[in-house]
Amino acid sequence: MVSKSQIKLITSLQQKKYRKQEQLFIAEGIKVVQELLHSNFELLDLYTTKQDFLTVQKDKVHAITADELKKISALTTPNTCLAVFKIPKAKERVEEGLIIALDDVRDPGNLGTIIRLCDWFGVATLFCSEESVDVYNPKVVQATMGSISRVNVMYGNLETFLLQSKLPVFGTFMDGKSIYQEKLPKEGIIVMGNEANGISSAVEKLVTKRIAIPRFGNLQVTESLNVATATAIILSEFKRG
Amino acid sequence: MVSKSQIKLITSLQQKKYRKQEQLFIAEGIKVVQELLHSNFELLDLYTTKQDFLTVQKDKVHAITADELKKISALTTPNTCLAVFKIPKAKERVEEGLIIALDDVRDPGNLGTIIRLCDWFGVATLFCSEESVDVYNPKVVQATMGSISRVNVMYGNLETFLLQSKLPVFGTFMDGKSIYQEKLPKEGIIVMGNEANGISSAVEKLVTKRIAIPRFGNLQVTESLNVATATAIILSEFKRG
Repeated sequence: MVSKSQIKLITSLQQKKYRKQEQLFIAEGIKVVQELLHSNFELLDLYTTKQDFLTVQKDKVHAITADELKKISALTTPNTCLAVFKIPKAKERVEEGLIIALDDVRDPGNLGTIIRLCDWFGVATLFCSEESVDVYNPKVVQATMGSISRVNVMYGNLETFLLQSKLPVFGTFMDGKSIYQEKLPKEGIIVMGNEANGISSAVEKLVTKRIAIPRFGNLQVTESLNVATATAIILSEFKRG
Repeated sequence: MVSKSQIKLITSLQQKKYRKQEQLFIAEGIKVVQELLHSNFELLDLYTTKQDFLTVQKDKVHAITADELKKISALTTPNTCLAVFKIPKAKERVEEGLIIALDDVRDPGNLGTIIRLCDWFGVATLFCSEESVDVYNPKVVQATMGSISRVNVMYGNLETFLLQSKLPVFGTFMDGKSIYQEKLPKEGIIVMGNEANGISSAVEKLVTKRIAIPRFGNLQVTESLNVATATAIILSEFKRG
């Protein structure tokens, strides 16, 4: 059973405004929900069409029908469960190792994929400019496949963050030095730009190391890489040593 | 103006069955349409809300309203133009350099991103198993951002293709050798698996070189990479030399 007021609350969490107000977010699908249950995220309620969450406190589990799930789901084709979690308090910023910093990445799928990449490559901190898509957007949570629980994602003014950091700041530009030739350090901030406009000029001024991913195809064509695949290639190159 | 029969034809092309029957496909958005116009693809008709296609034969350009565009578009938020192109005849297979082979990749966004990666890294041939998503699916065409015109995408039985090829066959597995340590050749077929199931067991038997992308994060967690980001990392590693 899911009450009208619960439906109202849960669907409101598809909007950033209400997530901020309630300090709650939703996660859907067995894989993602299970990963979050096994992490430090605090569960508020779990709605499921199947009774297979043995590890969860019984008073938090609500058996619902597929029709009820449809009403609260943010997905076109709902899975078998939806969970409401509390948004954790921001962790203290640790400036060590590699940090990815996003300059207004707007696509939820891209942010989700980049969080998975940070998890894979052991990047503990992901810094997002204030205009970047919200990490608790249901589509982002979905795309992270649970790795959201293992990466510290923080938001703030990107220029201030770069200005006060002592780490080298890497940014990708056409005229940058090839990542295959540059000696890449174990510590640093790697800035990835907006899908349409790349790195903004204000942020570009704070980049101390201009790098580039060389192209091997037809060089006469202006082509670009998607920001998530570019992040994959750059992180691989930094980490391979 | 767009007639009822044109609307019927164009919307039918969202389905593979009719694309095959008519040997036509649709492309949307200035960037993608322009790239295809500057390629070898043959234009049938162009529908646009703006009159800015000066390079196109006038009798092929149809001025339409935003409402009419909505009726024929496959997008939730239609752009300013939609073009119908002829599906080109399959090119002859050239077995040289690196070839990417997909074992039932089903997500249109993933196929589109992989085509962009092939274009970027100069991979001329992309072989898709018959069950892979159709390259002329509107979402794939969209995601390629025009690079569909520069990569030779072919479909067929993947096992037969691998069996008859003399090139080494690379596949990614947990127990494979690190791509960062393996000497990677300039020629070979790189098989990428299905989003949920990876490489099928029938295809796995034909893999001659088992490789792996090493993880640097928490090794106790089972995590995986999206097939498009994995392709990005592997292609970068093969090409960097």
